[in-house]
Amino acid sequence: MVNTCPQEFIEFAGSLADAAGPILQQHFRKAVPVDTKSDKTPVSIADRDAEQAMRQLMANRYPDHGILGEEHGIDRIDAEYLWVLDPIDGTKAYLAGKPLFGTLIALLQNGVPILGIIDQPILGERWLGATGRRTTFNGTDAVTRRCTNLENASLNATSPDMFAGSDNTRFETLASKTSMTMFGGDCYAYGLLASGHIDLIIEADLKPYDFFALIPVVSGAGGSMTDWTGNILDMQSDGRIIATGDATILPQVTSILNA
Amino acid sequence: MVNTCPQEFIEFAGSLADAAGPILQQHFRKAVPVDTKSDKTPVSIADRDAEQAMRQLMANRYPDHGILGEEHGIDRIDAEYLWVLDPIDGTKAYLAGKPLFGTLIALLQNGVPILGIIDQPILGERWLGATGRRTTFNGTDAVTRRCTNLENASLNATSPDMFAGSDNTRFETLASKTSMTMFGGDCYAYGLLASGHIDLIIEADLKPYDFFALIPVVSGAGGSMTDWTGNILDMQSDGRIIATGDATILPQVTSILNA
Repeated sequence: MVNTCPQEFIEFAGSLADAAGPILQQHFRKAVPVDTKSDKTPVSIADRDAEQAMRQLMANRYPDHGILGEEHGIDRIDAEYLWVLDPIDGTKAYLAGKPLFGTLIALLQNGVPILGIIDQPILGERWLGATGRRTTFNGTDAVTRRCTNLENASLNATSPDMFAGSDNTRFETLASKTSMTMFGGDCYAYGLLASGHIDLIIEADLKPYDFFALIPVVSGAGGSMTDWTGNILDMQSDGRIIATGDATILPQVTSILNA
Repeated sequence: MVNTCPQEFIEFAGSLADAAGPILQQHFRKAVPVDTKSDKTPVSIADRDAEQAMRQLMANRYPDHGILGEEHGIDRIDAEYLWVLDPIDGTKAYLAGKPLFGTLIALLQNGVPILGIIDQPILGERWLGATGRRTTFNGTDAVTRRCTNLENASLNATSPDMFAGSDNTRFETLASKTSMTMFGGDCYAYGLLASGHIDLIIEADLKPYDFFALIPVVSGAGGSMTDWTGNILDMQSDGRIIATGDATILPQVTSILNA
């Protein structure tokens, strides 16, 4: 039984997104210095400053909560409440001036995600999912669309480069059975799935700070998020993700991805 | 010698984009019926109505000009002035609710592109390129950025599915030598290249209505657009495209793509 997310956490999560947004706006489409991290992903001052701003708010308001952030690491991982932050999901898109990146904010209670935000500060678009209520997009209900057969499903993935070895072949087999395949989008694609514009997202190599915020958003809109075997996602998941707007197609999808 | 594009055509092209935009806005993120064309690409009522609106304006104003449109075909292909229209470049993105598609409008004089518009009606963003003047982005100058070595270049392609057979291997070899590779974006990526946010775009399978509008935008911002051998693009081009913000890297690129 998952607890209903307390309203005070929903409001506080909104204030975190409100703090990160202006920092990302300020550096967007400017020539910002970029470092390459040990995992070969790019990071900019915008990532670091936005996460720092959110951490400062948390330290003031909930000093006993834990934090797992992409850029500044882990504090109090064993706390009952753990905030999981990705200041810029889609750093490549951000650096290229594409307004489809997002700030991801998740809250876990004893390891279970009870709140998630996908915030797009350039477009002023925000998806909010929380246990005990419907997902909203800028304050109005977001609902996934019906799609009961894989051949009618539109498929999205951020990049084929996500899929290592035979996973790439499995992805291509799946893609060939859908109505259309698109690339790009990062977290923004999950928001579009929650709003009923995309039917299926298959990805891999996602980290906890990439996927935890997406779960309440997708679930609260009527969709499902699992790993490639159809199991729920947790801190030990291998980063391979299936998101469906209509879980009717999930058995078809897992059957192909595990062939 | 390419003629300077007359101001009256620049203003008229803007009015075409102004006519298409509201039609695309009206159907965006709505459940619109989608057909699959003989080339297996999707088309919606938004594509067809937007092109029809532009064609009507042209029939009234320039009845002797030629028109080549993605959805409604060719009229007067041998006219001195030929307008080349794609009401929605990036139909998949449009159908998925991603605001990175664009309306493309090109004007050719005796086969040479003298004007191009990339219009994004959801974001209210417009790139305009015309011979004899600098490219503009929403009225202010757009300028590509310096990038003199492939290893510092960011690379974009709409989808790896564009590349048939050994072209895919060549693309992957090239991608491995750049600083980062992104997918998605359609015509919008060329606008971002013109504005100095992306260094290199490699695509294939583009049709004249996909690429003609991009040429004046990219050229007038300081960049280059060629086919994979480095030759200029024309009606007979094979649809394989290289766009660079800084043509210094073009010899490195063509060398890899033709290995």
